[in-house]
Amino acid sequence: MPLLIQGGRIITPNDDFVADIYCEDQTITRIEQGIDAGSLPKDTQIVDARGKLVFPGFIDPHVHIHLPFMGTHAKDDYESASKAALAGGTTTLIEMICPGPSDEPMSAFREWASLAEGRAAVDYSFHMAVVRFDELAQRQLRAIVHDEGIASFKVFLAYKGALNLNDSDLFGLLAMARELGVIVTAHCENADTIAAMQARLIADGKTGPEWHEPSRPTIVEAEGMRRITTFAELTGAHVYGVHTSCSEAVYEAVKARLRGVRVWIEAVVPHLVLDKTCAEKPNFEGAKFVMSPPLREKRHQQALWNAIRGGDIATIGTDHAPFDFNGQKDMGKADFTKIPNGVPSIQERVALVYTHGVCAGRIDLQTFVDACSTQAARIFGMYPKKGAIGVGSDADLVVWDPEWRGKLSKEHSYSKTDYCAYEGWDVQGRASVVTVRGEVQARDGKFVGNIGRGELIRRKPTHF
Amino acid sequence: MPLLIQGGRIITPNDDFVADIYCEDQTITRIEQGIDAGSLPKDTQIVDARGKLVFPGFIDPHVHIHLPFMGTHAKDDYESASKAALAGGTTTLIEMICPGPSDEPMSAFREWASLAEGRAAVDYSFHMAVVRFDELAQRQLRAIVHDEGIASFKVFLAYKGALNLNDSDLFGLLAMARELGVIVTAHCENADTIAAMQARLIADGKTGPEWHEPSRPTIVEAEGMRRITTFAELTGAHVYGVHTSCSEAVYEAVKARLRGVRVWIEAVVPHLVLDKTCAEKPNFEGAKFVMSPPLREKRHQQALWNAIRGGDIATIGTDHAPFDFNGQKDMGKADFTKIPNGVPSIQERVALVYTHGVCAGRIDLQTFVDACSTQAARIFGMYPKKGAIGVGSDADLVVWDPEWRGKLSKEHSYSKTDYCAYEGWDVQGRASVVTVRGEVQARDGKFVGNIGRGELIRRKPTHF
Amino acid sequence: MPLLIQGGRIITPNDDFVADIYCEDQTITRIEQGIDAGSLPKDTQIVDARGKLVFPGFIDPHVHIHLPFMGTHAKDDYESASKAALAGGTTTLIEMICPGPSDEPMSAFREWASLAEGRAAVDYSFHMAVVRFDELAQRQLRAIVHDEGIASFKVFLAYKGALNLNDSDLFGLLAMARELGVIVTAHCENADTIAAMQARLIADGKTGPEWHEPSRPTIVEAEGMRRITTFAELTGAHVYGVHTSCSEAVYEAVKARLRGVRVWIEAVVPHLVLDKTCAEKPNFEGAKFVMSPPLREKRHQQALWNAIRGGDIATIGTDHAPFDFNGQKDMGKADFTKIPNGVPSIQERVALVYTHGVCAGRIDLQTFVDACSTQAARIFGMYPKKGAIGVGSDADLVVWDPEWRGKLSKEHSYSKTDYCAYEGWDVQGRASVVTVRGEVQARDGKFVGNIGRGELIRRKPTHF
Amino acid sequence: MPLLIQGGRIITPNDDFVADIYCEDQTITRIEQGIDAGSLPKDTQIVDARGKLVFPGFIDPHVHIHLPFMGTHAKDDYESASKAALAGGTTTLIEMICPGPSDEPMSAFREWASLAEGRAAVDYSFHMAVVRFDELAQRQLRAIVHDEGIASFKVFLAYKGALNLNDSDLFGLLAMARELGVIVTAHCENADTIAAMQARLIADGKTGPEWHEPSRPTIVEAEGMRRITTFAELTGAHVYGVHTSCSEAVYEAVKARLRGVRVWIEAVVPHLVLDKTCAEKPNFEGAKFVMSPPLREKRHQQALWNAIRGGDIATIGTDHAPFDFNGQKDMGKADFTKIPNGVPSIQERVALVYTHGVCAGRIDLQTFVDACSTQAARIFGMYPKKGAIGVGSDADLVVWDPEWRGKLSKEHSYSKTDYCAYEGWDVQGRASVVTVRGEVQARDGKFVGNIGRGELIRRKPTHF
Repeated sequence: MPLLIQGGRIITPNDDFVADIYCEDQTITRIEQGIDAGSLPKDTQIVDARGKLVFPGFIDPHVHIHLPFMGTHAKDDYESASKAALAGGTTTLIEMICPGPSDEPMSAFREWASLAEGRAAVDYSFHMAVVRFDELAQRQLRAIVHDEGIASFKVFLAYKGALNLNDSDLFGLLAMARELGVIVTAHCENADTIAAMQARLIADGKTGPEWHEPSRPTIVEAEGMRRITTFAELTGAHVYGVHTSCSEAVYEAVKARLRGVRVWIEAVVPHLVLDKTCAEKPNFEGAKFVMSPPLREKRHQQALWNAIRGGDIATIGTDHAPFDFNGQKDMGKADFTKIPNGVPSIQERVALVYTHGVCAGRIDLQTFVDACSTQAARIFGMYPKKGAIGVGSDADLVVWDPEWRGKLSKEHSYSKTDYCAYEGWDVQGRASVVTVRGEVQARDGKFVGNIGRGELIRRKPTHF
Repeated sequence: MPLLIQGGRIITPNDDFVADIYCEDQTITRIEQGIDAGSLPKDTQIVDARGKLVFPGFIDPHVHIHLPFMGTHAKDDYESASKAALAGGTTTLIEMICPGPSDEPMSAFREWASLAEGRAAVDYSFHMAVVRFDELAQRQLRAIVHDEGIASFKVFLAYKGALNLNDSDLFGLLAMARELGVIVTAHCENADTIAAMQARLIADGKTGPEWHEPSRPTIVEAEGMRRITTFAELTGAHVYGVHTSCSEAVYEAVKARLRGVRVWIEAVVPHLVLDKTCAEKPNFEGAKFVMSPPLREKRHQQALWNAIRGGDIATIGTDHAPFDFNGQKDMGKADFTKIPNGVPSIQERVALVYTHGVCAGRIDLQTFVDACSTQAARIFGMYPKKGAIGVGSDADLVVWDPEWRGKLSKEHSYSKTDYCAYEGWDVQGRASVVTVRGEVQARDGKFVGNIGRGELIRRKPTHF
Repeated sequence: MPLLIQGGRIITPNDDFVADIYCEDQTITRIEQGIDAGSLPKDTQIVDARGKLVFPGFIDPHVHIHLPFMGTHAKDDYESASKAALAGGTTTLIEMICPGPSDEPMSAFREWASLAEGRAAVDYSFHMAVVRFDELAQRQLRAIVHDEGIASFKVFLAYKGALNLNDSDLFGLLAMARELGVIVTAHCENADTIAAMQARLIADGKTGPEWHEPSRPTIVEAEGMRRITTFAELTGAHVYGVHTSCSEAVYEAVKARLRGVRVWIEAVVPHLVLDKTCAEKPNFEGAKFVMSPPLREKRHQQALWNAIRGGDIATIGTDHAPFDFNGQKDMGKADFTKIPNGVPSIQERVALVYTHGVCAGRIDLQTFVDACSTQAARIFGMYPKKGAIGVGSDADLVVWDPEWRGKLSKEHSYSKTDYCAYEGWDVQGRASVVTVRGEVQARDGKFVGNIGRGELIRRKPTHF
Repeated sequence: MPLLIQGGRIITPNDDFVADIYCEDQTITRIEQGIDAGSLPKDTQIVDARGKLVFPGFIDPHVHIHLPFMGTHAKDDYESASKAALAGGTTTLIEMICPGPSDEPMSAFREWASLAEGRAAVDYSFHMAVVRFDELAQRQLRAIVHDEGIASFKVFLAYKGALNLNDSDLFGLLAMARELGVIVTAHCENADTIAAMQARLIADGKTGPEWHEPSRPTIVEAEGMRRITTFAELTGAHVYGVHTSCSEAVYEAVKARLRGVRVWIEAVVPHLVLDKTCAEKPNFEGAKFVMSPPLREKRHQQALWNAIRGGDIATIGTDHAPFDFNGQKDMGKADFTKIPNGVPSIQERVALVYTHGVCAGRIDLQTFVDACSTQAARIFGMYPKKGAIGVGSDADLVVWDPEWRGKLSKEHSYSKTDYCAYEGWDVQGRASVVTVRGEVQARDGKFVGNIGRGELIRRKPTHF
C-alpha cells in the first residue's frame, strides 16, 4: 500500500525542511513539497504530519533479546521486543549473539537467527560475539561474515570464564577483522580485576546491589578502553566501544582517535539519565538498576552529553537486557554478583533522549537523529538503506509529536519484564506514526503492525 | 537557463548515489534517476557527469583578498580571487574584514563590502575582525550583525599592536557574541611572547625566514587555544580556532570540547602538505612559505589528517593571503618579521586535499566534502543554501573528474601573486564543471563565467 | 648560650634516627649519640627530647605581614606574626613585598625591610613582587637581587589594575630572571576574566562571599598555570606556582615539568583542610574564608594531598594574610569583591599538616618535613643554613610532641586578627620547644623569646 | 682497618659540603671538618679526597647475573659482576631471581642465593620474580619475605609463556604485596601483543634486529604501565615500573601518581644514551643493542632526562644482562626474537650518567646521587644503611675524580661478555676509590678488593 506523509518537518543529521514524502514498494520514492494526493494511487495511505517532526526510523545498535546469562534467560522474545521497539520509535535493532564458551559460532548464529525469523516486526541484524577463537571458530566466523551478512563482531574484555577473550585471541580476532573489513564492538572492562574485587567484596559481606559499582570502578573501564584501542592501533582494526559510561573511558578513546585509531563510541540511555544512587535503593530495589558497566556518579552524565554534542560519542543505544525483578534479579539477593545484568530500555530510549537531550537544550535535533539513528546505520553498514530520509531509502519513518507529554510506566510497556526502570518519569514527545518499509507498525505508543514483517538485514563489511 | 547534470555520482557527507540533478531559477529543483531531458525546457544546458563525482560547491571559510598588512596590500582583488577559487572548485568564500586598530567597524565593513560588490564571481560573506571594543565599536558590531548579515567575528590573540585584542576586551566580545548567537573565529597565538621572541632573534642576528617558526613554536599556539577555550567556557560563547597547525593545539581544543565548550577547529591546506623545511629553503625562497601559525615539523601533518578523519577538525580552508615574492615578501630580506605572511592556496586547495587526503587513503569522500564544503556552511549559517545537494539548495555544484592528473603551477594560476607555492606538484582530480547558482562559471580549470555574478550571502546568527 | 637537645628522634627528608644535637654560636656543631653533658660548658641549656621528634625549623615560604590591600592594611606586624609563627613551630618566613603600581621597587624594598628590622623574632626573607617593569624598575630589581640578597620575584597574573603584570612585561621579567638565576613565584589566575566575571555577578545581585569561588573557577587558575609555564618554557626561567588550589592547575604544571620546564608547586594549608562550603556559611561568616585562589570543592583536597605525597607539590605554605572580620572583611558586605582576601594560618599550619597529613596517614614524616621546611630552603636558596639538621646548619630546631592533643582557637592565637579560621578544631602534635639559631623562642605553644632576634637572610640566586 | 677520607666534597641528595669522614667497624662514625689524623688509630688508612667528590656508594637496582634465558645463560657470575660494578663505583646491586614457570619460588631463591654467597664483592639483595601464583607459591613467597629478607617482587607483563603472569594472578599478587608491605617491580609490556606482532614480522621475513623495536612499540609499554597502575590503584599495592623507556609510559605513571597511586619509575642507562638506530647497525651488529623495552627514537632520551630532573623518574639502573655477541646474540641471526636480550652496562652506568647527565647540564649533582644511589636505597628498604653518608651508615663510599677523562672499552671491562656496547665512548669522571663497608675494593677503575666480602642485605618490607 503506498504511503504519503504530508507536511512534516523532516529532520536528518544535515537537513531540516518541510516536505511531503511518498513511499512505494517499501522505499521512499519522492520527497517534494506539495505532492498532489489526487494524482496518487487510490489506496495510498495518507498521514498528516503537519506540525510534527519526521525522522528516519530510529536504530538501536545494542540489544539483547535471546540471552542465556547467569543460568537464566532474558524475558523478551522477538515479538515483545519488536512491539516495545516500535512503540518507542525504533524500527531497526541489532541484537548480540552471545554463544557459550564452547558453542560453535555458526550454530549460535543459526540459533539466534531462527529465533528472530518470522517473529520480528522490526528489521534486525546481529553482532556476532566471539568467545572462542580456535581454528574452527575462525573458519565459521569468516563464513558468517561472507555468507550470512554479518559485518560486526563483539568481544568482551569482561565476564571472565563466560564471554571473555584472552589478549592473544583478541589480537588475532582484531587482525582478522581488519582483513575482513569488519568492525569490532567491545565491552571494555577488565574481567580479572572485576572477578577479584567481587570476590573480596563478597568475602567482606558486601553483598548488596550497591556494591556492584564499586566492584568495577571507572578506571577498570578506562583500562579496557585503553587496551582495546592499543590493540586497534597495532592491528589497524576498527573498533567500537559499547555502553561507555564514564568520562575517563571517553577520554581514552578520543586520545586514541587523535593518534589515528579508528574508534567509535556508544553510550546507552541508562547511563545518560540514571546514576549510581539508583542501585543504592533500599529493599533490594537497587537490583533493577544493576547493569555493566554500572551506573556511575551523576557527574558522568554531563560528560557523556558533552561528548554526544561534540560528536565524540557517535551512537546512543540501550543495552536492553530484560530480566524480571521477581524471580531473576532476586537470584542475587544474597550476592550482587548473581544479579542478572540489565536495565530494559528499548521502548523508552527515544523519548528519554528527546526529553533529556533535545528538550533540555543539551543537543539539537540534528545531533539527536544522528546519534539515535544515522550513525548506527553508517557505522554498521546499513546506510542509506536505513538511517536516512532519501529517495531509495527504506521507508522507515517516524512521525514525532514534539508536544506530547506523558509518563513512562510498566503499564504501557511491551517488554515482558515485570518492572519499568523509569516508572512514572515525565517525558515529552512521542512517535505518532512509525513505519517499517512503508507499513505503519505503531501509532501513538501502541503497536498496530504485523509480527513477522521484520527482516534480517544482510550487511557487507565497510571497515577497510 | 535551466541546467541538467546527468548521471553523476553524487557525494555529500551522508550520501553516495548516482542520479540526475535539475536546476532552475538558481536552485536545485529535482534530484532523480533518469530525468527525461526531452521533457525539459529547450534551453536546458546539459552536463554529462557520467563517470564523474558531483559535489556541492566547495567553500573556503578563510580567505584574505583586500588585506592591508605590514604596510603593503595583498595582491588579489575579487576578480582574480574569484577566478582562482572557481578554477579550483570553490564557489563560496568567506573573507576576513581586517580594519586597522583605530578604524570604525562599520566603515571597514563598508569598505570591504564595496570592494566585493560587482566584482565577485563567487558568492561570499565576511568574518568581521574585532580589533577595538569601545562602546562605538560595540554598537556598530551589533548593527553589522543585525543589519548587514554578518554572523561571525574574528579575533587575533596574535599580531600585537596591530590586530591583537587584550584579554579584557576579548572576554567582553565573547560575552556579546554569546548574546548575539555569533560564532567567534580566533587566531590563537600569544602576541606578546612572539613579539618578545622575535626581538630576541633579530637582536641575535637570526633574521632569515627559517627563524619564523622558532619565533612562534607550537606551545605558543597551544597556549592561545587554551586561553580562547577557557574564555569560551566562562562566557558560553561558541568559538572556532582558525588555521590550527599542530597536535598540541588540536588537543587543547578537543579537551575543551569534552568539558562542554562549543569549539570547532579549522585546518588550512598549507599545514597539511607543507612543513617547516620549506621556510628553510636557501636564497630567501623560504619567504614564500612564511605564514602564521608557521609551517611545522612534518609529524604534525599526520596529526592534522587524523583529526580531520575523526571529525575533530571540522573544516579545511586556506588562509589565502597573496603577496608577491618580489617586491613584497622581500621587504623582509633583512628581517623575517617584516615578511608579509601568507601562502596563496585558494585555487589549489581542493585538488591538494583530494590528492593527499582521498587518493592517499587518509580520508574518504564523505569526510572530504564535509571538511571542504558542508561543515563550513553549517558552522557559518549558510546551510542548506550552501554546502548541500538537495532540493531547494543553491545550484552550486562541482562535477569532478577523479581520474584527471596534472601539475600545479603559476602558469595556470589566477591569483596575482608572482609565484605558486606548489609549483610543479602532481595532483589528481580536477573540477570539470563548476556552477554558481546554476550558471557554469568554470570548466576544466578555466574560468568561463561572469565577473559580478557573485553575491553577498546575508547570514543569520545560529550559535545560541 | 650553648644548647643540647637530648635523645630526640631526628627527622629530615632523608633521615630518621635518634641522637643528641649540640649547638653553639647559633649553629649545630655536633650530632652524636650519647653526648656527655658533663663535658659541655656549664651554661649549656639542656632540652630533654626523649620520646619526641626533632625537626629542622619549619619554613613558611608565603606570608603577608605588611600588606596594603583594597584600601586597608593587614593587621599583623612583625611582632605578632613572629610570635604566631614561633608558637606554631615556624622559624623562618618569606614575606611578599607588594608595592603599588607606581611605587619604585627599591623604595618598596626599603619600606618592607625597615618594618621587619628589629621587630622580627623569626628569621625572614622577601619575595620581591614585580608590578611594573619599566627601565627604572629593571635597574632597581637587579640591584635588589645583587645588593640586597633577594633571590626570588613574585608576579601576579591576577589582581588587574593593582598588581597584574601584562604578558609583555611578564615575558621580559622571566627573561631577566633567567639571566639572574632568580626564581619567579607566580599567582596564576587570569586577571581579566576574573574582573569581567565579578562585574557580571555583582550586576546580577550575586554579592555574597559564596560567589567568590564561582567568580574565579578552577579553569581560570589552570589557564594561568598554563600561561606561566609556557612563558617559562620559552625563556628558560624557573617558576614556582604559589597557593595552587586545584587538580587542574597541578596537572598543567606537571605536564610542563615533563616537557622540561623548571616548575615547582606550592600548596597552602587552607586549601588542604577547608573547602568552598566554608565561604557559604550564613550571616556573612563565609567572608572569613575568602582568599584567592578560593577554597574549592572538597575533592581537590585529596588531589593536593596526592601531589604532596608523590612529590609533585614541593612546599606547603600559608598565604597568611590577616584581616579582621569586623571592620575589614565586612567592607565587602554588599560586594564580595571588596572583601580583603586572606585566611590567617601562620600559627596553625604545622599542626594542621601534621594532623591531617601525618596522623591521617596521607603522608609520612619525611614528606611532612620536606614540604613544610626543607624544600622551601632548597628552592629559595637557604639550604643547608635552613631546612636541615646538619653540622654547620643554623640551630633552628623544633622539638615536637607527637602525642599532644588540643584545639585551635583565637584564644591561643598571636595573630592580631579578630578570628581564627579553625576555631575549635582538634589537632594532634605541638612544638614543645622551638629554637632560632640556638635560642629558645617558644615553648608549648607560647612565645618565650626576644623580639628583634630575627635576621634578614641574604640569599644568592641559585636558579641557573 | 679504620679509614679516613680527608677533605672531600660530600654530595648527597640534600647535602654539599666539605668534611672528613671517619669509618670504623664497617660504618661511618664521624663526619667532621679537620679530624686530626694523629689522634686516630695507627692503622687508619687515609684517603686524600681533596678536590674530589665523595658520594654514597652507588646502587644498581636492576641487575641480572645468573640468568637462564632463551635456552642459554648470561655470561657473568658474581665475581665478574662484582668487579665490574665496583670498578664503576657501584657498591650494592639488586639481582632479579628469575625462576622458570614451574620452579618453586623457594628453591629458586636458594639457587640464586647460593650462587652469590661467598662470591660477591659488592653487597647485594634480590627481587623475587613471581612467575606462578598457586597456593604453594604463595606460601613460599610469604616465607621468602618473612624469613629471607626479600622485600620486593618482580612481575612480567611481558615474556608470554615464560615469565608472564596473567591478570588474575597479577591482581592476587598485588593484593598480597599490599598486605605484606612489599613493593612490586614490574616489566610493563603487553606479552600477547608482542608475541602476535613478532609472529607477523617473522612471517613477513622481517627477521633482523632492526625489527625488534617495531615489534614492541611505545604504546605497548604505555598500555602495560596503564594496566599495572590500574591494578595498583585497585589493590593499594605499591609498584615500581622498571626500565621505563618512553615518554608515553612515564606519562601514564605520573597521571596515576596524581590519582593517588603509589608508583615509582626506573630508567636504565641504555635508554638514556642509546637509541633505536643502534639496533639498525649493519652486519647484525644491531643485535648487541637488543633489549626490552627496546631502544627508542632519540626524542625519548630528553623526555627521560626531563623526568629524572623533575623527580618523576626515581632511579637509574642498568638492566645489566650480559650475553656474548658471538655464540649467544647470534642465536637470533635468522630470527630477532631469538636474540638474548640485554645491553651490559653495570660498569659503565655511573660514568655515563655523570657525563651525559651532570656534565651535559641536564641534572645537578644532587639529582645524580639521588637517582643513582639514594632513591634505590629508600624505595627498597636499605636506607640509611645504604645510599647515605651519615653517622651509622655503612661505609660504602665513592671518591670521585670529576676531572678525569677517558674512554669506555671492552679492554677495561670486567663483564665476561665479548663486547662493550659503548666501545670508544668518551666519558668524564671516574671513581678513584670505592669502599664497601670501610674496605677499599676498587681504585681508579680497577678492582683491588676481596671476592667474598659482599653480603646479602636482609630487607624488611616498608611499603605499607
